[in-house]
Amino acid sequence: MATHKLLLLPGDGIGPEVMAEVKRLIGWLNAKGLASFETEDGLVGGAAYDAHGASISEADMTKAKAADAIIFGAVGGPKWDGVPYDVRPEAGLLRLRKDLGLFANLRPAVCYPALADASSLKREIVEGLDIMIVRELTGGVYFGEPKTITDLGNGQKRAIDTQVYDTYEIERIARVAFDLARKRRNKVTSMEKRNVMKSGVLWNEVVTSVHVREYKDVTLEHQLADSGGMNLVKYPKMFDVIVTDNLFGDMLSDIAAMLTGSLGMLPSASLGEVDAKTHKRRALYEPVHGSAPDIAGKGLANPIAMLTSFGMALRYSFDLGALADKLDAAIAAVLASGLRTADIKAEGSTPASTTQMGEAIIKEL
Amino acid sequence: MATHKLLLLPGDGIGPEVMAEVKRLIGWLNAKGLASFETEDGLVGGAAYDAHGASISEADMTKAKAADAIIFGAVGGPKWDGVPYDVRPEAGLLRLRKDLGLFANLRPAVCYPALADASSLKREIVEGLDIMIVRELTGGVYFGEPKTITDLGNGQKRAIDTQVYDTYEIERIARVAFDLARKRRNKVTSMEKRNVMKSGVLWNEVVTSVHVREYKDVTLEHQLADSGGMNLVKYPKMFDVIVTDNLFGDMLSDIAAMLTGSLGMLPSASLGEVDAKTHKRRALYEPVHGSAPDIAGKGLANPIAMLTSFGMALRYSFDLGALADKLDAAIAAVLASGLRTADIKAEGSTPASTTQMGEAIIKEL
Ligand SMILES: CC(C)[C@H](C(=O)O)[C@@H](O)C(=O)O
Ligand SMILES: CC(C)[C@H](C(=O)O)[C@@H](O)C(=O)O
Repeated sequence: MATHKLLLLPGDGIGPEVMAEVKRLIGWLNAKGLASFETEDGLVGGAAYDAHGASISEADMTKAKAADAIIFGAVGGPKWDGVPYDVRPEAGLLRLRKDLGLFANLRPAVCYPALADASSLKREIVEGLDIMIVRELTGGVYFGEPKTITDLGNGQKRAIDTQVYDTYEIERIARVAFDLARKRRNKVTSMEKRNVMKSGVLWNEVVTSVHVREYKDVTLEHQLADSGGMNLVKYPKMFDVIVTDNLFGDMLSDIAAMLTGSLGMLPSASLGEVDAKTHKRRALYEPVHGSAPDIAGKGLANPIAMLTSFGMALRYSFDLGALADKLDAAIAAVLASGLRTADIKAEGSTPASTTQMGEAIIKEL
Repeated sequence: MATHKLLLLPGDGIGPEVMAEVKRLIGWLNAKGLASFETEDGLVGGAAYDAHGASISEADMTKAKAADAIIFGAVGGPKWDGVPYDVRPEAGLLRLRKDLGLFANLRPAVCYPALADASSLKREIVEGLDIMIVRELTGGVYFGEPKTITDLGNGQKRAIDTQVYDTYEIERIARVAFDLARKRRNKVTSMEKRNVMKSGVLWNEVVTSVHVREYKDVTLEHQLADSGGMNLVKYPKMFDVIVTDNLFGDMLSDIAAMLTGSLGMLPSASLGEVDAKTHKRRALYEPVHGSAPDIAGKGLANPIAMLTSFGMALRYSFDLGALADKLDAAIAAVLASGLRTADIKAEGSTPASTTQMGEAIIKEL
């Protein structure tokens, strides 16, 4: 059995608590001989800043590059609101994405049947919802230069951010979306603002040409990002795979996650290109939810998104799809039994702490 | 009685149909002696392109500058998908905004009680919802330079858009938001992505300093635009006034509109600075909904958003608040009577065409 090297980066807020449940699961899998993982720990975000004055240390970046996959908790919190821009907690995450070339961010928005009532949307609108948002993660306004604030004198400053996309960046993310669609319901919706942005014009053009050249069997639709957002709220089931840029993807995937009522359950995967020699790809797995500083340290956090993120690692990095299926089934069974952390509590459900939820899932496994 | 000069720009799709109902209302107000309006007609968007090869003619721009207010329908449609970028339908609207200095876009998201069930959200989440989104409209990524697509050779192109904000642009839109909040529930939520964008850092800093210097009596809250979007979907009633940049405002105001179930009802106002001498401000009023080419020409469109946009003109440009109140009451009464256009039909409601709806509202007035 191959041994897989994981770097665990719990980060801030509820990160360490939910990561503890992944550690518990890994320990159990190793002990049962169901898989073999070797783990290292590292610091990222505010935790790294407090320890080293940087949002991630060079040593941890080196470990990240050597790992088969990174399991990431969450970063940020009001404690670090005043730290210099370059070492703010988010910078650690952004550096990992950029330096490891993790250009493809996969964010499933799935409505767990047991949780449909937790949605602010009507049950019939979200029940059975299963969307995959494919967000470009290493380009766009997140990384484009210039990115500056200049003092113009007279008490005036000017801030500039730059949205940049090259053809190849759009091509490779489009391929990820089309490939995923082929294993799903065979439909891709591409979103941009081509009526206002030149990057939207190029995005639309490149996605269309990848489609025509390589994926004619998949249905492709284009929507403007603003009306796409509206459709997401009104008719979410019209979507299968959505592909969009870094900033629109940030907004739209969060909104999609919220629709499902399952924010505390949703994982994400950030993938690099497949290496031509090793056939491996760099990968980072993280829950969609943030560091939730308001509930940190109280045992209230829902560990399921962190566990399903590890499940995505099983599937996408380690070819352990069958094990991932079992994990999903165990989670579904525990939810069906009525055990709930505070964020998903319902009438008649049994309250569970972070640890109790993690333990129950392993027991079910 | 002062005579007010209006430029009517119906535009494309359902624009002309819904504008016809505004004309009917204006004719009635003039005839009854309740107000005095002089109107001119112009072309914008695809309609202008078809007539002149430009998305708005110089002659109509001159009329726009001379008018006391512009009443705008909607632009765009698949018919003009292939036209050159510079003369696409949206360019006409963008030029009006920029050349007239209409920096403040006010988009109320109100849930009409009679329509709460038309929302995809649960009634209790949206009933009574009343948010005002204040979107910056002449800056940001919409207008920043460079805005280009460059051929890099090797089959690669590079697209660039630039997000630019200066201190004064953020100050003036913040003041609009704070002033509105004082007449409402006294709370402003500012949204940006300061954790990723330098313009977000400056936005946050400037809004905070305007607050501290001039509006300490108003409650100010900051949210990241992505979690702000999530909160909009999950807890919309936490908001009173939201102030945000051009692109986030585009997305968030559309989503907020959709939440209410009242998209076909929602108006918007785009306002310039108050002239120091005349005390007037340039203004354009338009429905939040688009040109809906799929239902154009069928008499299916809901004219209410266009009529409430005219109502905003009464209020913000002509100090005819009492008349605007009467218009709102007439619309509420007609809805309560069960008359509905197709977009807002409900069990037991009486179907109405665009014209029937417009006539019923005037009759009620
Ligand atoms: C933490 C932040 C930098 C990040 C982003 O904006 O990408 C987060 O919102 C996300 O979506 O992963
Ligand atoms: C038509 C388009 C250019 C416009 C925009 O993006 O601003 C529209 O979506 C709006 O919100 O008014």
